[in-house]
Amino acid sequence: MTDYDSSNIFNKIIKGEMSAHKVFENDDAIAMMDIFPQSRGHLLVIPKAPSRNLLDADPTALAQVMPLVQKLAIALKAALKPDGIRLVQYNEAPAGQSVFHLHFHLIPVYEGEELGRHGQGKADDTELAELARSIAAQLN
Amino acid sequence: MTDYDSSNIFNKIIKGEMSAHKVFENDDAIAMMDIFPQSRGHLLVIPKAPSRNLLDADPTALAQVMPLVQKLAIALKAALKPDGIRLVQYNEAPAGQSVFHLHFHLIPVYEGEELGRHGQGKADDTELAELARSIAAQLN
Repeated sequence: MTDYDSSNIFNKIIKGEMSAHKVFENDDAIAMMDIFPQSRGHLLVIPKAPSRNLLDADPTALAQVMPLVQKLAIALKAALKPDGIRLVQYNEAPAGQSVFHLHFHLIPVYEGEELGRHGQGKADDTELAELARSIAAQLN
Repeated sequence: MTDYDSSNIFNKIIKGEMSAHKVFENDDAIAMMDIFPQSRGHLLVIPKAPSRNLLDADPTALAQVMPLVQKLAIALKAALKPDGIRLVQYNEAPAGQSVFHLHFHLIPVYEGEELGRHGQGKADDTELAELARSIAAQLN
């Protein structure tokens, strides 16, 4: 955990110091809309336990988060009917990591639509709030 | 599990009907070199339990495999010293899935080298065997 810097933006959201379009939250994790989505419905699942990425994470926290990642993928599919979903997790900047708190991307893929590049543009807040509600409605 | 077709190539490897450049195997999972690597050291981690992908997997099997995915990422980093690692898992063909048995990609990223497209070309067997040995040597 030596490389973990708690000033990252996801930790601020976990601590309630910044807002987010949350889809789910419990004591262990938050799921929320990516504000720079690569496609409509792009979600992030973030374990609350502090770790920089996969390499330094507590194995127990990793085991615990995966069934939640699955539940969100299933809810995402039910809500938005994508043709496929990519689960992606980046470790270190050369691999694509830009926030240094472990997080998993769930990126819906729609046939005939190219994925955007991450960070291409910020999504509309009203649309993100509506997407968050529609996905949350499919959880259980 | 209704969509699971047991004739897929990864299930043949699990059953021992086909060979692979294995890095690790226990009762629950196999890790092996991707024979169409996107970069040097591209690994696959495959739970043995039958499921098509993340969406229909047994949550217990998902929880169980993640600490192994982590161990392999750490071993990969120690063996090949990539600048980053991508963890990727595809659900359905439009998202990039080509073998319909749940599997996780660990793709090393080396600064200044573009990732290849999956399926671009088959790697040399001698090189894959050597990579498998060098990564396995870093597992604990």
